[in-house]
Amino acid sequence: MKDYARLDKNNAAVLLVDHQTGLLSLVRDIQPDTFKNNVLALADLAKYFNLPTILTTSFEDGPNGPLVPELKETFPDAPYIARPGQINAWDNEDFVNAVKATGKKQLIIAGVVTEVCVAFPTLSALAEEFEVFVVTDASGTFNEMTRDAALDRMSNAGAQLMTWFGVACELHRDWRNDIEGLGTLFSNHIPDYRNLMNSYATLMSK
Amino acid sequence: MKDYARLDKNNAAVLLVDHQTGLLSLVRDIQPDTFKNNVLALADLAKYFNLPTILTTSFEDGPNGPLVPELKETFPDAPYIARPGQINAWDNEDFVNAVKATGKKQLIIAGVVTEVCVAFPTLSALAEEFEVFVVTDASGTFNEMTRDAALDRMSNAGAQLMTWFGVACELHRDWRNDIEGLGTLFSNHIPDYRNLMNSYATLMSK
Amino acid sequence: MKDYARLDKNNAAVLLVDHQTGLLSLVRDIQPDTFKNNVLALADLAKYFNLPTILTTSFEDGPNGPLVPELKETFPDAPYIARPGQINAWDNEDFVNAVKATGKKQLIIAGVVTEVCVAFPTLSALAEEFEVFVVTDASGTFNEMTRDAALDRMSNAGAQLMTWFGVACELHRDWRNDIEGLGTLFSNHIPDYRNLMNSYATLMSK
Amino acid sequence: MKDYARLDKNNAAVLLVDHQTGLLSLVRDIQPDTFKNNVLALADLAKYFNLPTILTTSFEDGPNGPLVPELKETFPDAPYIARPGQINAWDNEDFVNAVKATGKKQLIIAGVVTEVCVAFPTLSALAEEFEVFVVTDASGTFNEMTRDAALDRMSNAGAQLMTWFGVACELHRDWRNDIEGLGTLFSNHIPDYRNLMNSYATLMSK
Amino acid sequence: MKDYARLDKNNAAVLLVDHQTGLLSLVRDIQPDTFKNNVLALADLAKYFNLPTILTTSFEDGPNGPLVPELKETFPDAPYIARPGQINAWDNEDFVNAVKATGKKQLIIAGVVTEVCVAFPTLSALAEEFEVFVVTDASGTFNEMTRDAALDRMSNAGAQLMTWFGVACELHRDWRNDIEGLGTLFSNHIPDYRNLMNSYATLMSK
Amino acid sequence: MKDYARLDKNNAAVLLVDHQTGLLSLVRDIQPDTFKNNVLALADLAKYFNLPTILTTSFEDGPNGPLVPELKETFPDAPYIARPGQINAWDNEDFVNAVKATGKKQLIIAGVVTEVCVAFPTLSALAEEFEVFVVTDASGTFNEMTRDAALDRMSNAGAQLMTWFGVACELHRDWRNDIEGLGTLFSNHIPDYRNLMNSYATLMSK
Amino acid sequence: MKDYARLDKNNAAVLLVDHQTGLLSLVRDIQPDTFKNNVLALADLAKYFNLPTILTTSFEDGPNGPLVPELKETFPDAPYIARPGQINAWDNEDFVNAVKATGKKQLIIAGVVTEVCVAFPTLSALAEEFEVFVVTDASGTFNEMTRDAALDRMSNAGAQLMTWFGVACELHRDWRNDIEGLGTLFSNHIPDYRNLMNSYATLMSK
Amino acid sequence: MKDYARLDKNNAAVLLVDHQTGLLSLVRDIQPDTFKNNVLALADLAKYFNLPTILTTSFEDGPNGPLVPELKETFPDAPYIARPGQINAWDNEDFVNAVKATGKKQLIIAGVVTEVCVAFPTLSALAEEFEVFVVTDASGTFNEMTRDAALDRMSNAGAQLMTWFGVACELHRDWRNDIEGLGTLFSNHIPDYRNLMNSYATLMSK
Repeated sequence: MKDYARLDKNNAAVLLVDHQTGLLSLVRDIQPDTFKNNVLALADLAKYFNLPTILTTSFEDGPNGPLVPELKETFPDAPYIARPGQINAWDNEDFVNAVKATGKKQLIIAGVVTEVCVAFPTLSALAEEFEVFVVTDASGTFNEMTRDAALDRMSNAGAQLMTWFGVACELHRDWRNDIEGLGTLFSNHIPDYRNLMNSYATLMSK
Repeated sequence: MKDYARLDKNNAAVLLVDHQTGLLSLVRDIQPDTFKNNVLALADLAKYFNLPTILTTSFEDGPNGPLVPELKETFPDAPYIARPGQINAWDNEDFVNAVKATGKKQLIIAGVVTEVCVAFPTLSALAEEFEVFVVTDASGTFNEMTRDAALDRMSNAGAQLMTWFGVACELHRDWRNDIEGLGTLFSNHIPDYRNLMNSYATLMSK
Repeated sequence: MKDYARLDKNNAAVLLVDHQTGLLSLVRDIQPDTFKNNVLALADLAKYFNLPTILTTSFEDGPNGPLVPELKETFPDAPYIARPGQINAWDNEDFVNAVKATGKKQLIIAGVVTEVCVAFPTLSALAEEFEVFVVTDASGTFNEMTRDAALDRMSNAGAQLMTWFGVACELHRDWRNDIEGLGTLFSNHIPDYRNLMNSYATLMSK
Repeated sequence: MKDYARLDKNNAAVLLVDHQTGLLSLVRDIQPDTFKNNVLALADLAKYFNLPTILTTSFEDGPNGPLVPELKETFPDAPYIARPGQINAWDNEDFVNAVKATGKKQLIIAGVVTEVCVAFPTLSALAEEFEVFVVTDASGTFNEMTRDAALDRMSNAGAQLMTWFGVACELHRDWRNDIEGLGTLFSNHIPDYRNLMNSYATLMSK
Repeated sequence: MKDYARLDKNNAAVLLVDHQTGLLSLVRDIQPDTFKNNVLALADLAKYFNLPTILTTSFEDGPNGPLVPELKETFPDAPYIARPGQINAWDNEDFVNAVKATGKKQLIIAGVVTEVCVAFPTLSALAEEFEVFVVTDASGTFNEMTRDAALDRMSNAGAQLMTWFGVACELHRDWRNDIEGLGTLFSNHIPDYRNLMNSYATLMSK
Repeated sequence: MKDYARLDKNNAAVLLVDHQTGLLSLVRDIQPDTFKNNVLALADLAKYFNLPTILTTSFEDGPNGPLVPELKETFPDAPYIARPGQINAWDNEDFVNAVKATGKKQLIIAGVVTEVCVAFPTLSALAEEFEVFVVTDASGTFNEMTRDAALDRMSNAGAQLMTWFGVACELHRDWRNDIEGLGTLFSNHIPDYRNLMNSYATLMSK
Repeated sequence: MKDYARLDKNNAAVLLVDHQTGLLSLVRDIQPDTFKNNVLALADLAKYFNLPTILTTSFEDGPNGPLVPELKETFPDAPYIARPGQINAWDNEDFVNAVKATGKKQLIIAGVVTEVCVAFPTLSALAEEFEVFVVTDASGTFNEMTRDAALDRMSNAGAQLMTWFGVACELHRDWRNDIEGLGTLFSNHIPDYRNLMNSYATLMSK
Repeated sequence: MKDYARLDKNNAAVLLVDHQTGLLSLVRDIQPDTFKNNVLALADLAKYFNLPTILTTSFEDGPNGPLVPELKETFPDAPYIARPGQINAWDNEDFVNAVKATGKKQLIIAGVVTEVCVAFPTLSALAEEFEVFVVTDASGTFNEMTRDAALDRMSNAGAQLMTWFGVACELHRDWRNDIEGLGTLFSNHIPDYRNLMNSYATLMSK
């Protein structure tokens, strides 16, 4: 009997790679309202679970544009590596040092674009025996054909494909740890869940 | 030469029909993140242009659920007609009186579900010679087949089909009326536009 | 001011054309679970509102197969015209007589396949100044291209395109006429609505 | 030569996880008519093959809502674990005990939402060397991107992906074991098959 | 009371415009197996109903390629106008003369590409008060956006949009005119119908 | 008998509205490679047929960005109206004067976004009795729902919906006017046609 | 260095499982024109390469219907196993004996429905160390979700997923073995290829 | 710890297989504008990184047509193997010799059609222990079902699935190696990126 590779909030860090205002205009495999919501949901859950989080950008002074301001605001004190040129964040020593400084072996990663900014550090981290959890719905790229190839490559190399809601649930383990906190996270990022909660609260208040 | 039937902020009112937390679970012709955003964008533009706005609900004490709280908060003083049973809001005298009390002849309407809560009052209002502008992307229903039939019926009866962005632009007429106000509205509800503005602002600040 | 052409339960009849077990295998513009549900929902609403209903089939002894048994069971006493060969039901004198015998001027029609069994009698009835309401989601055909052409033809000829839920709502007018009856109809044919009702009932029972 | 991991009706149990009236409003990767049909088909086949079946829910007193009533009615005597907070049902000792009490090593699982309520216990059960068969069409979640990631994760961990019809066929092995029983199951849940049977029966009766 | 504009086999001619082997590689709004089948079905029905049929091509010596051989074989004696340069076939005097020589006022038209080879002569013929029936599924073009615009333009100018199956049914009027002939036409071009007929014939032969 | 409203190269002008580098990131109802090609094809045909062409932009110093450089290069001497704030180009006196100065009554229009930058001047021009031809595939907007509403509104107001290829063909009338010129235009913008021409040329050269 | 598992016309047999006229009405993951063409293409290539072919059916006297006649006609002398009840053809001794009698170790398989009639014998044959090549486009089932699960299960068990065109090409190896034969096969089943050949032949004949 | 199989510009060659003008008309799993762009982007990056590139064609004198001229022009001195009949390029000794003569062990491959011209040499090269990187978006075939089967087969055999943009980024490693060169490559083949660069350049120039 062996356990499954299960996310553990005491052993996980979050890597947000190149969610920059210019690069986001390249993302077309997911609708913009949904993508924005997913990225912010991932950021909010990282903060909620108090996971060490690392921000990095590529050429933010050029057309790629600055980091999405909401991410900077959510993590004002996080390591922030503005890479001078390395395309694979893992080729940047500061980035790798920041990752290793967290002491965590589970990496939750998302970024733009999927097949480059997510796939390259994922493959590098797997090669160094990290467990890597790719948040597919907080990562975006040009089209579905590109995404499918990227996910196949990462999955075959040992990455686990997840989406933000599953990450939150696997980290939380038990609603009793904090019903209200998790409920608020879901209400803020899942309109259908917010509706359920509002219907329920209204009835309960009568 | 005749002018086109053009939205005029001095002659328009907004009708928000049955955006209730239970009914929203029926909406499947548009993704929930997008739909939520569109409805709130329409509310924000109504407030921005100071348009008289009327809220109505159907059976809000039952499974249909309460009005989406954000709408109530945006329009705390708006006429609010909780209909005791009429399916077509136009069959409710209070609702029609509230509409007529605005003194406006252009009605901007959205609701859930499209073929009932939007289509029925639209057809009734057209029959009374109002100009009706249906905001298709802030209205939702079961599936695309249902939506297409509803839009065909309303369009054939003389309604104009629009989406919230076009409504805002047609009302505003000229950016010079208020660049910052309209820009903020767009930035809050169009992630791609927000990115453009953030890229621009960052470059300008250098 | 003119009223809109609004369904009136005292002036409407329902025509169900060629919903036969063989012909149903031709329907591919709508999924089979959904289509079956829509056809039965239309039948149930016809019965609920006590609308005169007419059944007709084409060559039911051949490959087209018999009428779907549930329809026969729902309307055991309805006029049932097994046409000996006419493709357009309106070319069959018995059918037209049955329609006219109802004394109704509003015809709610659905059938298989849309561009033939629905469109032909619709166009014929419109030419004789009936008001025709096509229930698009209880009508099916080979593919979407075919459906779109058929709906365009009927809409241009004056038919109103609706779906079963809108028909039920327009006929009912006011929930207070019978909350439980309409609620049951919806619960039986709209899983999302059934869920809302079950959630509500459970909470209310506590 | 080795046999394939083949479902055996003497060695299989069914786990139905969190099919609750509130949570169902989150399911958008499959249409509601189809999903309801698939879930009930899985329930009916579990009963038909007399497989031990375990029901579990999460927070059924809150917004998640009660178990879908049809499931409770189909399995009035089944173990029913209303989990007090564990998100992964396998973290609930009563649930695991109920599973192990069946003495079966093949677990057929479905639930809402796929990447959490299905994937977590699937991964846990695989880690304890159960054979797990995921019924993908009786499991639902937010969207296709989420589903695809969840299925990839479970498949890579050794789960077998199936749909309810394949499960029924693999359990039955030979039509001669009971033609009428299996035929009825299919007729009740596959409109196209019901049509074939009705066409056939009509011709045979002549 | 007025009759509807109904296809009459004694008053209809068929125009097949530019179904050439090169141009067919441009068609991407419909799958090639389906498109080939639809074009040949239209040809077969034209022959079956003995409708005067006119073939025309554009630049068949260049990259556009020759007429699809099956069409030439089906109508060896039909007027065949290889246009020397006119893009709109109606600008070619021989073509218009051939049309007028049929003495028919109902024109059934299909071709490649829809917005040019079909739309231009359709609009010209409507302007000369022909009744025009566009066979949308035997006409093809670059993509759906192009097709939708073309169909909107023709429909607004008075053309009736149909598909080949509806054309055949409207021309035939009554199965009793020739059951076997029409059945064979359908069996040759509708796999689902062929299956129904084969199932039926097998059972009948027992 | 009346002629159809047919594009005439001696009576047509082209209006290119707000194809700006920032605004283009909003376009998601058409893929970017295809959209870029369509816009440049429209520009090339305007130049090829020597049609008076008018360029206009909205706020090009802000986030909307500059005019796509290729358009400026193709029409170095065209009237270029950088609007100071009017959203509807027709509200800008210089723009309307430029249009009227062409002396043409047929306006071929495309722009970004469809429901605003195209629809508003289209509706204004129709009200002044211009004939308006909307090039739908060289116009783009947020999503298909928005596009469909915009096209419905313009079509109902009398605009003719076309795509660039149909515009080119309707203007050219007869290949013999210039085979090589039109062939080159098509080869440059239709890969499938280019392939046909290359296959043909290769065979002819042997 | 190892060779890849490559189809060898001297070592391959074809299994066609349950392509019956009734069952075909269940196939909805692929359009009927295309599916019919693919199945017949696979049959034609089996005959062309002279591969031993085995036909089998399930309950052909009941609603499942008879074998598609074209298959029977193409292989009048092939082993034909009408199974009395076994759902997995590999559970039928006659079928397995027929397979083993061919002496081939490569099995090319297709059937209806994919997750049962194809997947079950595929998994059984793999367990007995045959190489199995699943022809996915000549196999059909209820919907894409079902197909995807079935293909995942077979692929994970070692089956190779192919489509009929790839099978033909891998068997043929070199066009010089018979240009005309292979060309005819392609021309009969690939309209685009037929068009290429017709364009070419026409030019060559000049 | 092991490194991942990462593209290295000093150890990679590019194989372009059968991008011929006739065969391209078969490609329907990707739109033609996009496909043309992707193929040319791959060619441009091969040239930019100075990778040894090998061209090959199949029967270019027949209906398959000549190599796309742009590829010949980009690589005037590349080995060019016009295969006399072998379908799998790896069965052609000249081709394999050309590959081996490059001395590279990483092969970047694309072609038409995916499941044959790409898959066969990919499987052969993997069997000889090359690392193979399939550029899925510069490879095309009949439809998505065919593509999916082909990619599954190659991925299972050890090929890495990529798209052209990822290939370029993985080869380049660091923007500082040549900002302008890579930027130009992206600007020429990614309209969204070109727009970002143009917006940026315009602002910078002020």
